[in-house]
Amino acid sequence: MDLPDVLFSTPEMSAVFSGTSRVQRMLEVEAALAQAQARMGIIPSDAAEAIAAQCRVELFDVERLFEETLAAGVLTIPLVRALAEKAGEAPGRYVHWGATSQDVIDTGMVLQAREGLDLLERRLREVGTACAELADRHRRTVMAGRTLLQQAVPLTFGLKAARWLALISRRVSTLGRVRRQGSVLQFGGASGTLAALGGEGLQVAELVADELGLEVPELPWHAERDRMADVAWGLATVAGAMGKIAHDLVLLAQSEVAEVGEGQGGGSSSMPQKRNPTNAVQALAAARLAGATASLLVSGMEHEHERGAGGWQAEWAALPALFRYTACAVERVGAALDGLQVDAARMRQNLDRSDGLIMAEALAVRLGGRDGHRLVGEACRRVAEEGITLREAAAADERIREVVSPQELAVLLDPEHYLGSTDLLIDRALEAFRAQSDR
Amino acid sequence: MDLPDVLFSTPEMSAVFSGTSRVQRMLEVEAALAQAQARMGIIPSDAAEAIAAQCRVELFDVERLFEETLAAGVLTIPLVRALAEKAGEAPGRYVHWGATSQDVIDTGMVLQAREGLDLLERRLREVGTACAELADRHRRTVMAGRTLLQQAVPLTFGLKAARWLALISRRVSTLGRVRRQGSVLQFGGASGTLAALGGEGLQVAELVADELGLEVPELPWHAERDRMADVAWGLATVAGAMGKIAHDLVLLAQSEVAEVGEGQGGGSSSMPQKRNPTNAVQALAAARLAGATASLLVSGMEHEHERGAGGWQAEWAALPALFRYTACAVERVGAALDGLQVDAARMRQNLDRSDGLIMAEALAVRLGGRDGHRLVGEACRRVAEEGITLREAAAADERIREVVSPQELAVLLDPEHYLGSTDLLIDRALEAFRAQSDR
Amino acid sequence: MDLPDVLFSTPEMSAVFSGTSRVQRMLEVEAALAQAQARMGIIPSDAAEAIAAQCRVELFDVERLFEETLAAGVLTIPLVRALAEKAGEAPGRYVHWGATSQDVIDTGMVLQAREGLDLLERRLREVGTACAELADRHRRTVMAGRTLLQQAVPLTFGLKAARWLALISRRVSTLGRVRRQGSVLQFGGASGTLAALGGEGLQVAELVADELGLEVPELPWHAERDRMADVAWGLATVAGAMGKIAHDLVLLAQSEVAEVGEGQGGGSSSMPQKRNPTNAVQALAAARLAGATASLLVSGMEHEHERGAGGWQAEWAALPALFRYTACAVERVGAALDGLQVDAARMRQNLDRSDGLIMAEALAVRLGGRDGHRLVGEACRRVAEEGITLREAAAADERIREVVSPQELAVLLDPEHYLGSTDLLIDRALEAFRAQSDR
Amino acid sequence: MDLPDVLFSTPEMSAVFSGTSRVQRMLEVEAALAQAQARMGIIPSDAAEAIAAQCRVELFDVERLFEETLAAGVLTIPLVRALAEKAGEAPGRYVHWGATSQDVIDTGMVLQAREGLDLLERRLREVGTACAELADRHRRTVMAGRTLLQQAVPLTFGLKAARWLALISRRVSTLGRVRRQGSVLQFGGASGTLAALGGEGLQVAELVADELGLEVPELPWHAERDRMADVAWGLATVAGAMGKIAHDLVLLAQSEVAEVGEGQGGGSSSMPQKRNPTNAVQALAAARLAGATASLLVSGMEHEHERGAGGWQAEWAALPALFRYTACAVERVGAALDGLQVDAARMRQNLDRSDGLIMAEALAVRLGGRDGHRLVGEACRRVAEEGITLREAAAADERIREVVSPQELAVLLDPEHYLGSTDLLIDRALEAFRAQSDR
Repeated sequence: MDLPDVLFSTPEMSAVFSGTSRVQRMLEVEAALAQAQARMGIIPSDAAEAIAAQCRVELFDVERLFEETLAAGVLTIPLVRALAEKAGEAPGRYVHWGATSQDVIDTGMVLQAREGLDLLERRLREVGTACAELADRHRRTVMAGRTLLQQAVPLTFGLKAARWLALISRRVSTLGRVRRQGSVLQFGGASGTLAALGGEGLQVAELVADELGLEVPELPWHAERDRMADVAWGLATVAGAMGKIAHDLVLLAQSEVAEVGEGQGGGSSSMPQKRNPTNAVQALAAARLAGATASLLVSGMEHEHERGAGGWQAEWAALPALFRYTACAVERVGAALDGLQVDAARMRQNLDRSDGLIMAEALAVRLGGRDGHRLVGEACRRVAEEGITLREAAAADERIREVVSPQELAVLLDPEHYLGSTDLLIDRALEAFRAQSDR
Repeated sequence: MDLPDVLFSTPEMSAVFSGTSRVQRMLEVEAALAQAQARMGIIPSDAAEAIAAQCRVELFDVERLFEETLAAGVLTIPLVRALAEKAGEAPGRYVHWGATSQDVIDTGMVLQAREGLDLLERRLREVGTACAELADRHRRTVMAGRTLLQQAVPLTFGLKAARWLALISRRVSTLGRVRRQGSVLQFGGASGTLAALGGEGLQVAELVADELGLEVPELPWHAERDRMADVAWGLATVAGAMGKIAHDLVLLAQSEVAEVGEGQGGGSSSMPQKRNPTNAVQALAAARLAGATASLLVSGMEHEHERGAGGWQAEWAALPALFRYTACAVERVGAALDGLQVDAARMRQNLDRSDGLIMAEALAVRLGGRDGHRLVGEACRRVAEEGITLREAAAADERIREVVSPQELAVLLDPEHYLGSTDLLIDRALEAFRAQSDR
Repeated sequence: MDLPDVLFSTPEMSAVFSGTSRVQRMLEVEAALAQAQARMGIIPSDAAEAIAAQCRVELFDVERLFEETLAAGVLTIPLVRALAEKAGEAPGRYVHWGATSQDVIDTGMVLQAREGLDLLERRLREVGTACAELADRHRRTVMAGRTLLQQAVPLTFGLKAARWLALISRRVSTLGRVRRQGSVLQFGGASGTLAALGGEGLQVAELVADELGLEVPELPWHAERDRMADVAWGLATVAGAMGKIAHDLVLLAQSEVAEVGEGQGGGSSSMPQKRNPTNAVQALAAARLAGATASLLVSGMEHEHERGAGGWQAEWAALPALFRYTACAVERVGAALDGLQVDAARMRQNLDRSDGLIMAEALAVRLGGRDGHRLVGEACRRVAEEGITLREAAAADERIREVVSPQELAVLLDPEHYLGSTDLLIDRALEAFRAQSDR
Repeated sequence: MDLPDVLFSTPEMSAVFSGTSRVQRMLEVEAALAQAQARMGIIPSDAAEAIAAQCRVELFDVERLFEETLAAGVLTIPLVRALAEKAGEAPGRYVHWGATSQDVIDTGMVLQAREGLDLLERRLREVGTACAELADRHRRTVMAGRTLLQQAVPLTFGLKAARWLALISRRVSTLGRVRRQGSVLQFGGASGTLAALGGEGLQVAELVADELGLEVPELPWHAERDRMADVAWGLATVAGAMGKIAHDLVLLAQSEVAEVGEGQGGGSSSMPQKRNPTNAVQALAAARLAGATASLLVSGMEHEHERGAGGWQAEWAALPALFRYTACAVERVGAALDGLQVDAARMRQNLDRSDGLIMAEALAVRLGGRDGHRLVGEACRRVAEEGITLREAAAADERIREVVSPQELAVLLDPEHYLGSTDLLIDRALEAFRAQSDR
């Protein structure tokens, strides 16, 4: 085990995608297959029972199976052999009946993916809840909006959190859809015709799918990998969403901005004063790892004929890695938001440090149109050159004074009065998340 | 213009994503904005009319606008300036009222994307229809199934086409969903608060969206780019699906396989005999270009605060390129399938060249279980070593002869009798496509 | 033409990779081929002259050639046909003699790449010179070092620029190597045997290469694309280097940091006060576009047998795009550094805003080892909790006072006295760049 | 441990990049640092000795260190703490003196990378030797050249292997360069100024580098990651080269081509007759995994200021994964070539199956120019339509007969007489490899 196995995963997701789980899920497919075929009278019932009884990973030497896969090319070959041996002479003949390696490997992966998606969705909802709380609590915590990392016009921290929340709500919905559409059986035999089962193949498929709680797809999909690509995309956009939030947090935690801090920031091996946004940084790293990994599953869609020669095998590594990276990103953003220290005073202070420039748009709007824009532009230049505030510059400009009284100017240049639909938008985000959660 | 602009696009898609279209769509957003605000009494009606009247790209010097964007950073700056000038002194004051650059650029892109998605979906359905015809016509055209590019067990060319069709049906459905979810207005002002419109921002948004036939999103999404990433994904998986089909075609067209040929294959500058699968090859190239381009839109999700500094701008190039590449891939696969020459005799001949080895599974299934697998394995080795057929090898093996009579052997080893659920599966694919088309 | 063609390129690089240039370079290869063969007596001298005389792009209808390539698959087919026609009946027979399409297309691309690399290297050196000036001028301009975007220990802006410079020096050297290794002829005929030229192929190759100023490779490389991948990598790392610098600039230009500003910052369509780091932002966008594009040329190395079916064709789009993106990144970083406004006072001010915390390491080192680290850690906590400076906290701690006198403390906590080898390192970077430039 | 850890790596490379090795290499850096500082009198000699004595990974609980890294963010924090404890009260104070976490983590990774590059280069040379033997042994083994997977003109299998060899020679040279340029110390302290060591930092760097057998770079490179990107590139192009060879092998092993077979092909869980090109397929999978992973290290070059927040951490996972994938690709291609079964008779047979069409170019060349191309084109069409051979079609064409006698035609259309410079080119590849090996 190397550091990334710990650092860029969660214990739960690592368990779902361990070697042991991989074998266990494949054994479950073999068991379901035998039982379905017994129900249909294709194989003897006692053979099915004998097979099913052995479908427990603890009975197998997983590491040896993996070593044997090096030569065999597919894990099913040593696995089916070992399972047949354990099941005994007579029942052993019926192991893996009518199936091809890819049926078992793909369906096993589908089972792991379903479990992984459930884990992810649960944790992502929790992160959503944390965002919802921040959105509500900080509805009126005014801060600088920043475009291209320049102060633009004010918003509230609650609105920022609401945008994160809306992003999460949409991604939760994506995960749900991906889970539904991806929870399908793979069962077609070597060329996808189910020939080894005569005309009974689809009925077997129904029963196996039923046993495993999966859907039967319209067709086997050995070499049409859009479903796996969709799962990958779902994960990558979740990771990307976490990257967005983590990036905002890292930027807000900068020493010169200091508007948020992680409750449990990391230290430094040389600098006693440091409190690093460790969780957000790890989330960013994980998100990038996820993005690069996911790209394989699209560029890998070109599988050859009835089974991919390279593209399919690469999925065995890419998909588990992608789940681990994504889980890490979600976990770490969750950890960063838990106990996030939000410094409202500092937010206000940063806002005020622009000498009112951040309120330039408000004044321009009041003055109206292109002319207003130009007048305020001139005032802004004087702010910069003369070291005065925008309020002072505006008050000093006759053309502005004509239109806006000093009293109005004070109100006009107060960030708290220039928040537009902020409140409403926060409500909409909360509502959408609640609607999503109720499903 | 360079060769790739022609070669890796279609004229229709190039038109949707031309510089002229970009400007035109943005002008439509400006017009809709002015008109909505006039309806609400925010700006004078005659100003709105004057503005809308100028919102025609042919009135603008597009190249100059682009040149000015180099310094301005965003196309809206020179565009709004030019539009205001054209609209005249008084109305010009109300151009772009309450909006930020990104509102107009993003919504313009959404309009282009919607048009591009429509184009793609239409052409993809046509490719689906071509696959459906092949699936039906070649239901019983037996050919070798190939896993890892080795002959496996037989299937029919109809089933292969049906799998392509199922893939296309799923992608058509994805495009539809992506279109629905992506057809949303961007409108939030500089920090997403709609502050410049006081409390009326959301109402303006409703009217503008209505004008443009778009949905109003729950929140502005300036820096939450999952929607654009989803569009990219939809395209990339369409391109990947085309890559899958094109790859199969290129492999089937190999001189040594020669089971299909393009109706209009390309020639060679040096070899008079060549008939290259040009369309399929260009589709593969386009699919790969699409995949690499799409990856940018996930890795680009980490936008900073209220506007991305780099990630957003990269979308301006990546998304149009992605549309063009994907359109090319779809177009080229369509062209390859149009008039595709399917050589059924050669398919059968290739199947027979394995000396019956491709029927090994059928025999093993008949003999039953692991033992059958072993017995047939021995027979296969003798086929390879002694240059006899599997039928001969099987007939010569007493243990096999005991179970299977020569008559049964003949039937058993006939590929046409080993097609399992092929027919049923083809029907399912046709049905799913029909259901999809009816929507 | 769309906006990205202007925005994410430079006029010079666009010219090198225009359609016209593409055709012109290919014509130069055809001309060199004919002339070489005439010198060897393989084709008549007057035929070679007649051919060479027509090898001027202005004689061709480039757009039509491109249109015809859609069906032909390769540009050489219409090009050779048109050239042969123009050259006249008798000489036309000798056009493209013994060559295959890929020979001419690849060699043409090599010529374009060489020109592009020269352009890039020249501009990159200029950017290096700008960094060198900043490094020297700001040797002692103290600023905060930042790790994980947290203030760490001080450095100078000169050292930061020196690190940019060292990065550029290394990349200039990479570009030079890539240019040398990539400036090779492609010439092998259809299967790389040069069969059409009997035993004279290599001699022809020598003469053609000589004519074009290229090296003859040990072997034709139609399907071994490492050279093109190396060119792509060289470009991608140049773009990545520009991304690094641009990212630093964007971060330093943040409103709350404000240590640098672009001389010609971009404005905003809605906010009169904004001065965006437009050049740096565009450089970042271009760098990301370059990175994604370059990845294609590695994943594209799997070309089939003697000619890639998809991977090769994708290069036609990817490589020119990559050159344009990289040129843009270099150009934009150059523009950002030209007239960069460096606010030394603000740098010092930001440094001081940490209440001395940034000097924690200096004090810990003076106190020694783990104990020092712990003592200073305690002092830092008091700085945070009590709102005092580190100097005050240290002075108040008896254990520290025992070791460090108040006078020493003042010196110790002065950033200008804690710069270690900064000066030396800057000299080393300047020296390495100078050595690089002298080559 | 999951299957990919076994399947997409080699035991040797997994050992180099195990968690244990990671910690061990970092401890070696700490030891070298202490010893260097003792030599310079910066820390007491006995402290250095006490520290160095503890720098053995078997004394540490690696898993616990990794767990603690989750909170700490960097492995050095728990590692330095544990090492200081083990070293004892007094010496413990001097552990990690003047260094920052990244110094130790990066230099540790450099040490691992160096070892990994050595492993790779050794194995890659062996693969080169296998190609050299094939090139020489099969110099005259005629086979079909294939462009766009269509038979083009003949070549020999020896020439194909020689092209693989040339590719490998170039990549061996790249690995060597990357190893040299990447074997550099990272040592700069928190902001790269070496401030904690006063003016002695560079001297310490020299001694530490000396101890570890590394070069001292001109400047610390904490946030300038081109060196790591170059290592990644070296690996990715090696993997890409393996992908090229593996792809050729998979294509040649197709049932319908059957020109090569792996000595130890993989079986199938359902089809007794299958002999899959397992090694080549795994190599392809590994090559693709490598390509996607490498792309991270370019897109990751945008590190922030003095330490990357996300990009750096992602390297911890990406670089080891990349080494493992690449090692797997090399190993698997080596295994595929070992005992590769080359079926020269089948190669000839496939060549002959084109009814002589593959010799079309030879005839066209003999006839000369565009006219010859046209005449032969007509003959080719008759071959296809009338089912005759090219020789028959040519003999039947008066215009051809006029120029070429039947006797000449026989020689002309014999592939063995149309190999051009094949022999010479093979010699050049062998020579280049030999020259490379002598270094």
